[in-house]
Amino acid sequence: MGSNFFFKKKKVRIKSIFPDLKISKNFIINEIKPLIFAKKNDITFFDSIKYLEDVKNTKCELCVTTEKLKKYLPQNIRYIVVKNVLFELARILKTMYPSADIDYPDITLKKPSAKKYKYVKFGNNVLIGKNVKIGKDTFIGSNTIIEHDVKIGNNCVIGHGVIIKNSIIGSNVVIQDNNKIGQKGFGFIPLVKKNIKFPHVGKVIIKDDVEISSGCTIDRGSISDTVIGKNTYLDNQVHVAHNVEIGSNNMIAGQVGIAGSSKLGDGVSIGGQAGISGHLKIGNNVKIGGGSGVVTDIQDNQIIMGYPAKKLKEFLKNNK
Amino acid sequence: MGSNFFFKKKKVRIKSIFPDLKISKNFIINEIKPLIFAKKNDITFFDSIKYLEDVKNTKCELCVTTEKLKKYLPQNIRYIVVKNVLFELARILKTMYPSADIDYPDITLKKPSAKKYKYVKFGNNVLIGKNVKIGKDTFIGSNTIIEHDVKIGNNCVIGHGVIIKNSIIGSNVVIQDNNKIGQKGFGFIPLVKKNIKFPHVGKVIIKDDVEISSGCTIDRGSISDTVIGKNTYLDNQVHVAHNVEIGSNNMIAGQVGIAGSSKLGDGVSIGGQAGISGHLKIGNNVKIGGGSGVVTDIQDNQIIMGYPAKKLKEFLKNNK
Amino acid sequence: MGSNFFFKKKKVRIKSIFPDLKISKNFIINEIKPLIFAKKNDITFFDSIKYLEDVKNTKCELCVTTEKLKKYLPQNIRYIVVKNVLFELARILKTMYPSADIDYPDITLKKPSAKKYKYVKFGNNVLIGKNVKIGKDTFIGSNTIIEHDVKIGNNCVIGHGVIIKNSIIGSNVVIQDNNKIGQKGFGFIPLVKKNIKFPHVGKVIIKDDVEISSGCTIDRGSISDTVIGKNTYLDNQVHVAHNVEIGSNNMIAGQVGIAGSSKLGDGVSIGGQAGISGHLKIGNNVKIGGGSGVVTDIQDNQIIMGYPAKKLKEFLKNNK
Repeated sequence: MGSNFFFKKKKVRIKSIFPDLKISKNFIINEIKPLIFAKKNDITFFDSIKYLEDVKNTKCELCVTTEKLKKYLPQNIRYIVVKNVLFELARILKTMYPSADIDYPDITLKKPSAKKYKYVKFGNNVLIGKNVKIGKDTFIGSNTIIEHDVKIGNNCVIGHGVIIKNSIIGSNVVIQDNNKIGQKGFGFIPLVKKNIKFPHVGKVIIKDDVEISSGCTIDRGSISDTVIGKNTYLDNQVHVAHNVEIGSNNMIAGQVGIAGSSKLGDGVSIGGQAGISGHLKIGNNVKIGGGSGVVTDIQDNQIIMGYPAKKLKEFLKNNK
Repeated sequence: MGSNFFFKKKKVRIKSIFPDLKISKNFIINEIKPLIFAKKNDITFFDSIKYLEDVKNTKCELCVTTEKLKKYLPQNIRYIVVKNVLFELARILKTMYPSADIDYPDITLKKPSAKKYKYVKFGNNVLIGKNVKIGKDTFIGSNTIIEHDVKIGNNCVIGHGVIIKNSIIGSNVVIQDNNKIGQKGFGFIPLVKKNIKFPHVGKVIIKDDVEISSGCTIDRGSISDTVIGKNTYLDNQVHVAHNVEIGSNNMIAGQVGIAGSSKLGDGVSIGGQAGISGHLKIGNNVKIGGGSGVVTDIQDNQIIMGYPAKKLKEFLKNNK
Repeated sequence: MGSNFFFKKKKVRIKSIFPDLKISKNFIINEIKPLIFAKKNDITFFDSIKYLEDVKNTKCELCVTTEKLKKYLPQNIRYIVVKNVLFELARILKTMYPSADIDYPDITLKKPSAKKYKYVKFGNNVLIGKNVKIGKDTFIGSNTIIEHDVKIGNNCVIGHGVIIKNSIIGSNVVIQDNNKIGQKGFGFIPLVKKNIKFPHVGKVIIKDDVEISSGCTIDRGSISDTVIGKNTYLDNQVHVAHNVEIGSNNMIAGQVGIAGSSKLGDGVSIGGQAGISGHLKIGNNVKIGGGSGVVTDIQDNQIIMGYPAKKLKEFLKNNK
């Protein structure tokens, strides 16, 4: 959001997308954002009762929603009633960001300029895109690709064969070999003849002191961002889907998968191969046993295990 | 099958492999194929009662089988009775295709010729093997390797760090970063001293409009092919084993694994981290919940979940 | 252990780390090793009653332990009583091996010298570190990186995009594309402000005739080594954590994960997506069903399945 990772068409008027809408033809869409992030000149969306709290507090004044949900909107918000919210979002996004629905490889990649990056240590065959910023004393391993506009802080260690795009990375971050960060997530509108690809215009934010082992995939956000909090450590082959927000001080073991839009608190630990479904809230200091399948929200300080995951005591009782 | 991905010895006579067989010494093996694909001059095999329907309909006239199964063969088919069908298949394949049991890296790789591929857009350090064909307006990302004889259609987007071998890819296909497609699968004959590597001479076929996210592995077929159907989308870190056939319009979420020789219908959706055992048939429009372990055939239109996977209603009842 | 993969500070005196210890100030720490490997001039550690047998048989004479465990030590062993054994180990290791806690990319990488490696066949853009040894008739695929001091035997086939560091590899080994071997595992001491990274000074040992499919991650040992036994085959996307020891003739299917310090016997087979918790002992000829979650030691010749894994009969009875 607010980044320049994706080409954005200037002055997209709402009337060009919804010609029948009764609104000033001069209304120019500033951005498309979730309810909690949207501001006055943005357009937002409300597609599930799950976001009732957010709808009450939004600062946005124009919202795409359904016939069924429109009654929950505060009076000062204009709405656009549609059959399929995601479909219309895809249409707006595709108009504003015509190339964010496919990961075209960055064609501005070049060998790093020794002058521009004089405080950075590079391995062999590193490729860097336009406007990349890399902090002092950071290492970049061989065969690593960093696409345009990525920012990396000071004193980081990036391994070999890493690919980073559409990401903002803090300081003292370790990213071991073969991680793929910032690619488009698994979001589309299924149609029998040919699916519609949903543009993903968010980014990945990785905070200070994070460590990521080998072979992970961290997808960028679709409309909001994917976030890895401070001092959080990921083991090998972890998959973090689009819009996932992980708090600080988490420990996430090997082969864990976190589905789209789930939010994890601080101090969460997750055992190997556990899976967390999409759109869930996991509280602070939750401990999730290896192999668990989490399908409901979990409150603070719970210890859970199983498939579907339950309180540990219950799991142990059922599996004596 | 019928490709030139693997060096094939000319005129291999059946007598050179089975000297005691009562058959014309001039019988030259055209190909080794599964019952349903084998033609008159091929050799086929029948090693499980699961394939009883196929054995009735085969056009092949020479079949490797066991003492126990030979009675099911139609009268016009000659058989070679052996103790271990897979072992004998490996022996025949190794004779005909002496280098398909190990993935020797392609040594014909070179920078792409600007003249030959004038309608293709390449990133940096791309390596292309002999006889590769790439369609118009296709992008190939940096550090990507495409081995000899691979075919890629028009208007595809292939990411960075992708490796493709032994594959035929349609048009409008998106293959994101770091996918590995066409490598040898997990097939061998276990022996205490040293396993026998089973030659894998099939390929991978990816049809039009497919999208594959990052970090997937799609193994080529052993004797038949591995197929991904039209408009099917795969999320990150999915593993598709040898001979798997996936229909059209499937949605396969992150970290799913599909074991060897299973067949999926059209319109199947699979939640994250689910696993499907080998040699299964999954019908059309089946929905498989995340984390499930599927160990039996599933009929059309079922919704299943659990480990082992059952009908969703039953799963929910058992897990209240 | 005993390798030169990591820079080691010379003559580290025990007094410099534990100034209050009543011991000759000239005691120089030779190595830090687990109880069973440690010798007279080494320092060892005893942090769990699980290792009671090992403590009785150790040849070491100086042991870091806790107030609670010190009574189990034989009389001839001096002990250093601490609150957190792992924390003190990290401190000793960081003093002796100041750069083993972060995977700094090898900066000695170069194109392979044609003279030095005249019996090796290289693909394009291969990068080799200092003191690497590669045997006769070994293939190394394109874009592959082999860091300093790695040893690879004769007649191996290493694919494209492979990264190998801190490893000793036998002969006739096949390592397919995109494997990552020898990186630092997931070991650290969690602290709220900033975790302490645990130095990992072990290596990976891969014995003769091993085959590893694509996209696996095999972490090096922390204080002991990670070992893959002779004639063991790994399928795609398998994760082997630090200190894991796998016997010979194992068959490990796709997406299996084995957590830190577990030991597998010979002839073990593991179905796809199974997970094995840390610090377990799995006997010889054990068969583990796909999708299982193993959380206890398993004796020889057992067939187990489920989550948590039980004897197969029991699993089938519970899941009729």
